[in-house]
Amino acid sequence: MERNYVTVDVTIGKLLDEKKYKTLKDILSTMNAYDIAMLLEDMHDSKIQLLFRMLPKELAADVFVEMDEDTQEFLIKGFSDAELKDVVDELSADDAVDIIEEMPANVVKRILRQADPETRKQINELLKYPDDCAGSIMTTEFVSLRPDMTVEEAIKRIRRTGVDKETIYTCYVVGKDSKLIGITTIKDLLLSEEDEVISSLMETNVISVGTLDDQELVAQTIKNYDFLALPVVDTEGRLVGIVTVDDAVDVMIEETTEDIQKMAAIGSSDKPYPKVGIFETLWQRVPWLLLLMISSTFTGIIIAGYEERLAGSLILTAFIPMLMGTGGNAGSQSSVTVIRSLSLEEIEFKDILWVIFKECRVSILAGIILGVVNFGKILLVDGWMLQNEEITAGIALVVSLTLVVTIIVAKIIGCSLPMIAKTMKLDPAVMASPFITTIVDVVSLLVYFWIASSILNI
Amino acid sequence: MERNYVTVDVTIGKLLDEKKYKTLKDILSTMNAYDIAMLLEDMHDSKIQLLFRMLPKELAADVFVEMDEDTQEFLIKGFSDAELKDVVDELSADDAVDIIEEMPANVVKRILRQADPETRKQINELLKYPDDCAGSIMTTEFVSLRPDMTVEEAIKRIRRTGVDKETIYTCYVVGKDSKLIGITTIKDLLLSEEDEVISSLMETNVISVGTLDDQELVAQTIKNYDFLALPVVDTEGRLVGIVTVDDAVDVMIEETTEDIQKMAAIGSSDKPYPKVGIFETLWQRVPWLLLLMISSTFTGIIIAGYEERLAGSLILTAFIPMLMGTGGNAGSQSSVTVIRSLSLEEIEFKDILWVIFKECRVSILAGIILGVVNFGKILLVDGWMLQNEEITAGIALVVSLTLVVTIIVAKIIGCSLPMIAKTMKLDPAVMASPFITTIVDVVSLLVYFWIASSILNI
Repeated sequence: MERNYVTVDVTIGKLLDEKKYKTLKDILSTMNAYDIAMLLEDMHDSKIQLLFRMLPKELAADVFVEMDEDTQEFLIKGFSDAELKDVVDELSADDAVDIIEEMPANVVKRILRQADPETRKQINELLKYPDDCAGSIMTTEFVSLRPDMTVEEAIKRIRRTGVDKETIYTCYVVGKDSKLIGITTIKDLLLSEEDEVISSLMETNVISVGTLDDQELVAQTIKNYDFLALPVVDTEGRLVGIVTVDDAVDVMIEETTEDIQKMAAIGSSDKPYPKVGIFETLWQRVPWLLLLMISSTFTGIIIAGYEERLAGSLILTAFIPMLMGTGGNAGSQSSVTVIRSLSLEEIEFKDILWVIFKECRVSILAGIILGVVNFGKILLVDGWMLQNEEITAGIALVVSLTLVVTIIVAKIIGCSLPMIAKTMKLDPAVMASPFITTIVDVVSLLVYFWIASSILNI
Repeated sequence: MERNYVTVDVTIGKLLDEKKYKTLKDILSTMNAYDIAMLLEDMHDSKIQLLFRMLPKELAADVFVEMDEDTQEFLIKGFSDAELKDVVDELSADDAVDIIEEMPANVVKRILRQADPETRKQINELLKYPDDCAGSIMTTEFVSLRPDMTVEEAIKRIRRTGVDKETIYTCYVVGKDSKLIGITTIKDLLLSEEDEVISSLMETNVISVGTLDDQELVAQTIKNYDFLALPVVDTEGRLVGIVTVDDAVDVMIEETTEDIQKMAAIGSSDKPYPKVGIFETLWQRVPWLLLLMISSTFTGIIIAGYEERLAGSLILTAFIPMLMGTGGNAGSQSSVTVIRSLSLEEIEFKDILWVIFKECRVSILAGIILGVVNFGKILLVDGWMLQNEEITAGIALVVSLTLVVTIIVAKIIGCSLPMIAKTMKLDPAVMASPFITTIVDVVSLLVYFWIASSILNI
């Protein structure tokens, strides 16, 4: 596939240079909207407009939706009002809203001015919902049926109105006052007798979400039930829209990226990495780095406090990075595992004791294994091979015991903080590695110096 | 939704105690397969079988597919041969394969013995494909049409055979020798005239994958093109199966979890966290911890090597954890961002210079900001507020300069290693934080001691 794409790229470049516009038009009209969008994004500015104008109207709108916002904005700025109207007319209301949300105010005004009154009303309706809720990602273009229709009438209705709908595969049965009372599928309709009545074949146990429900719940529901679309109802139970599986997939990817960013102490951004400017990137990263840097003042204070005593066994400082590094890694293994498991709904808060018990057992075993290996390694590598005379069995014992304790503490903190965050309605992902590492660093240093004092009498 | 579920849970528990089996049957038959599966998983063993036996045949198979493998295995072990046959008969071949892959050998034998010869053949066919490739996640139950059929004939064929198909919404047009030559959708069929010929309305620019293509490519393609299903062809271009969007979603989640695990230095497991035993968890985590622990021998050697010179300015050791921690965090911000961006296909290897240039600018600015803040903080907090007399402007300068260099080095290593891994056909995710931190630790220590020697003449 990759190869195919490159070939098309070269061909189109050549044809453009040779001004073979007729051939270009033919090629483009056989291509997929997504592929054309990717192709245009990589083109030189002057060529983007030229190629875009060659596309048939409907395909042009599909391509427009798939492009990144910079290219969209560039195209809109070059459009005449008539050209803009052509594109806007073909957009579904939810796609239009997605585009509008990313555009500067003057572009938004131009788009709304070109939209026909009906679409404008729908767009304004959708714009009212807060970001990240079901209402903001739903489409209002769905197939609705009445319960007293026959299968034949229903299929006729779909044939007449289906062309503009986001999906015709799931059909929604609404009663009086637009209340959602059942769903059925094209499959059920096609496999039923023509004179059967919709109310007798529809599924009445309908799973739906509210307009203000979190988009993450929407995506999770669609995933759990393997739905192609999920109905969205208002507080009165009236059907106001549907969310289709492709939009749910986008939400899932967006939410996962946000989780991953939080786990790595990065502020979230809904733009892809190549589109985030230098200063926005700084803004995502520097506050977290500053916070974590300043919080490591504590480790500094602890070391400074033990300085005089350390002067006698200076070799102890050589193991601080290893202890902190291993503690950090052990803690982040647990926190990341628990955070992912929470977000996949494999575990919830009520499992906290079970999780801590499990992590306890794992960490004790892991601590012992690493402690023993570390003890051997220090004596063998640092002491014998590198001939460091300061290394004694006592030093190796202090370091290894500290390692065992550090791993156990790190894993228990690592698994419990995200779960506690969850119950406090905080995002578990912010309790990930960098945050936990800072706590573990302090604890492991204190343990280190305490054990060293006890065993080595420093 | 959550609340609903709990209520049903309690109701069913009560009805079971009161032995109101008729009512239970009625309730269960209106419920969704996923909900029933979740309900059964939480039940006491003895009740699982009782409830499962109340389900109508087809629903029972759907519920079975949704359950976790432990519950599946438990049920199978309690089934009579006839009961097992009932479930296996209703399973689609790809679902059967998913189940078989997780079961112990004796259970697999029982399942295969109960499958009818046709299903058994299909199952064995699917079992031949290596894990994680398109062939292993596809279903062989799709609607195929001939190019010379009319729309009317096509719809008739779908009505006749559609019941057992995984999806009827996308229909595949195959020519002689089962070669895939086009696709069409139920929507197109319903919106076309009845006497139109399939070959005139089908889309011939078909996007497909090969049986041995990676499942990640399959998921990515379905996501990019917003497909409901993707055809899978063999090396001769013959249509052998399709992958539906719900399976693609599962693949995406699985692959993302694997990425997240790798980034946190955890060996991958395809089981959810609560199902992974203590020893398997150890096996996922300990080898990485050991590797990283042993590799931090280098930092130990460096510190030990500078020990005598450090003895004069012991306060320098107090800042080592802060320098390493900030370096690690700065590096992992970059590596995690790049790894996620690579896996979402936002960037590829050819962008490496652009990425490095961007990270350079970000890291220089971030380095300067953190360096300046750190300089002020050391003099103000550590020196003045905590009245540590060892803190001089010289010490603050050494630490802050090292911090600037460390952040720049960390970000450049952090962004380039995952991209280099990608070209070497390695998984970029293994180049994440823990690995990069180890390198950054060594570099920052060397820089620290070098700057300290130059400025403080230690």
